[in-house]
Amino acid sequence: MTLRDEMLDMGRAARRAAETLRTAPPERRTAAIRAMARHIRANVDPILAANAADVAAATAQIDRLRLDAGRVEAMAAGIEIVADLPDLLGQELARWTRPNGLDIARVRGPIGVIAMVFESRPNVVADAAAIGVRSGNALILRAGSDALGSARAIHAAITDGLVEAGLPAEAVQLVATADRDAVGLMLDGLDGAIDLVIPRGGKALVERVARDARVPTLGHLEGVCHTYLHASADPAMATAIVANAKMRRVGICGATETLLVDRACAHALLPLVVAALPGCELRGDDAARAIVPMTPATEEDWSTEYLAPVLAVRVVDDMGAAITHIARYGTGHTEAIVAEDAGAAEAFLARVDSAIVLWNASTQFADGGEFGFGAEIGIATGKLHARGPVGPEQLTTFRYVVRGSGQVRP
Amino acid sequence: MTLRDEMLDMGRAARRAAETLRTAPPERRTAAIRAMARHIRANVDPILAANAADVAAATAQIDRLRLDAGRVEAMAAGIEIVADLPDLLGQELARWTRPNGLDIARVRGPIGVIAMVFESRPNVVADAAAIGVRSGNALILRAGSDALGSARAIHAAITDGLVEAGLPAEAVQLVATADRDAVGLMLDGLDGAIDLVIPRGGKALVERVARDARVPTLGHLEGVCHTYLHASADPAMATAIVANAKMRRVGICGATETLLVDRACAHALLPLVVAALPGCELRGDDAARAIVPMTPATEEDWSTEYLAPVLAVRVVDDMGAAITHIARYGTGHTEAIVAEDAGAAEAFLARVDSAIVLWNASTQFADGGEFGFGAEIGIATGKLHARGPVGPEQLTTFRYVVRGSGQVRP
Repeated sequence: MTLRDEMLDMGRAARRAAETLRTAPPERRTAAIRAMARHIRANVDPILAANAADVAAATAQIDRLRLDAGRVEAMAAGIEIVADLPDLLGQELARWTRPNGLDIARVRGPIGVIAMVFESRPNVVADAAAIGVRSGNALILRAGSDALGSARAIHAAITDGLVEAGLPAEAVQLVATADRDAVGLMLDGLDGAIDLVIPRGGKALVERVARDARVPTLGHLEGVCHTYLHASADPAMATAIVANAKMRRVGICGATETLLVDRACAHALLPLVVAALPGCELRGDDAARAIVPMTPATEEDWSTEYLAPVLAVRVVDDMGAAITHIARYGTGHTEAIVAEDAGAAEAFLARVDSAIVLWNASTQFADGGEFGFGAEIGIATGKLHARGPVGPEQLTTFRYVVRGSGQVRP
Repeated sequence: MTLRDEMLDMGRAARRAAETLRTAPPERRTAAIRAMARHIRANVDPILAANAADVAAATAQIDRLRLDAGRVEAMAAGIEIVADLPDLLGQELARWTRPNGLDIARVRGPIGVIAMVFESRPNVVADAAAIGVRSGNALILRAGSDALGSARAIHAAITDGLVEAGLPAEAVQLVATADRDAVGLMLDGLDGAIDLVIPRGGKALVERVARDARVPTLGHLEGVCHTYLHASADPAMATAIVANAKMRRVGICGATETLLVDRACAHALLPLVVAALPGCELRGDDAARAIVPMTPATEEDWSTEYLAPVLAVRVVDDMGAAITHIARYGTGHTEAIVAEDAGAAEAFLARVDSAIVLWNASTQFADGGEFGFGAEIGIATGKLHARGPVGPEQLTTFRYVVRGSGQVRP
């Protein structure tokens, strides 16, 4: 059987499984998610053995790839959080009656079959499986070659959980090959079997998916996030927020990459803020460098997602200049303003068109868990369907259910 | 200036106009829509003159292309309906407080810049302009060559309305050339200036857009809509609904193309239903033809959107067989069940995964106006972002606005 035939078979099986998932009682979906967590815990040894083999063979990204007993337990615990989330399917989002008596309801349902392409984080298999079953979507997962052994071991536990609860094993399928052509076939939609592709990985993967997909995609490009210190910012708060937004974890997409500071407060604030950023390389414009010594920033720095202890720093004339900078160089992910002046803050929140805008809080709150979604599979920076953290709710759609009594259209 | 440079300029102008539209007060958007209607009424003569020239030069689709005073008045009246719709921007869709005190709001906003590619219906310029301004989106419209003169005349009135209300003329731009390369450039996204492409036209156009677009799209493919007569159907209601669903207007996407009839009631119902379809060609399976003489249906008939007085007819064993038929041949647009048995009807409504499912009503109700949306620019059959009628609300997205008091992430 060719790879193409094999993948088309997976697509058809996923479509059938999606139908079963969609119409299964909520309790069965919940039971399957709980059983997945149990089987992951019961299989910690084979999962770690497979992961050790992956790590031994890996060429890069070992930190993201490596599992230990604690990470496996965290995976199982994360799945259980999703099991406790309310079931969404069949929920009435709106309902109204027309003058002719037609009763129209907008009812939530799953998207159908979702393909997810990821790279070196094997825990994505567990997160995605739980979120997929909770939202009633069948999944086709494609792991990077580095993580394939670990992904298979986790997937075996997921399958056992599905089957134990009486759901089809094909509700969560894993592409068994590292052949890169598999991704191309998925982006082509497997003959209409795939409703949505979600890339979860580096810039090159996300760009390939955006460029080549013939089916809808939901991805986040980069997070070039900004923290803007307004002239009215409280110095202690500004210092604490910038330190957290940049340095708490530098490798996540919600980490601040550029600091914008009002000219009016730059002399007072910049030295304080910089003192709170030990170990962070600073790259500033001339005005910032006139206050604190730092590397000169180049044009490229303003649009770079460092994912590293590096911060670009720019002094701006006023809030308008800060908003213009963000619109020009930002990626529509997450931006924060620190300000005591509520009017200025509200204007910033209204005018900055990013998925998440924050006032007096760290950009590192850009996270589904922190939003109370229970779980997420990424932060969407596109404007269609979902923006911001993508949890189970964001993987649903709706239908219109219309109840009549013989109405015909005049 | 090359076409490419010209189009990139349009993209940049649209992006600037979108920013102005998004932050303009709601009253100004309303005033602009009202002014558009006024300028259309004031320019009925030049619009009809341009249209007469288009019609004289046209090669096909003359019915869709032709305007008269009544159609121009209907265009203006349709715009005024949209002016009366509530403004949606800034609406809080949800708001909650996290245990750490963060106050999170999901706030509605426009998508940004929407490109719309249409064929021979010049009234799309007016409908789209009103819906675009109401939802705060800047538009780039591309008319088919047949309709370009009419589109220009209508667009001139739209521009006058925008400018009169103090909004930028570039909020609604019309591509001035019939050069087909313009569509390719739009599908490529004009260097990030276009957020969404909506095709409004025939199958070839919609398929080209789905295949070639590098930006998100919202289109409806075909409407192969079904009406299913359950064994419990009331004969008089079934007859009235089928006649309306098929024949009221055969050329709209919500027209029924296939009739499915339960075997248990086929002998009793089919002759009645057929008698109510004078002038309609019937193409049936063997079981249907054993009851009423009709042309034999081929496999292709089950998946054909006739948009003509032709109806495919199939006798099915039971509701399960009807649902299987719809899942296999349908396009996810609109399906109806006629039944007195409420349990059967609810099962059908729950199991059929189409954008619109109706019980005891005509499929021709698949229309934004009939749903109470005030206006629509099409029926979406995809599953992402919007399903069913696409009105102003469906052209919005949301952002998360987070208000804190100095929170940093642990």
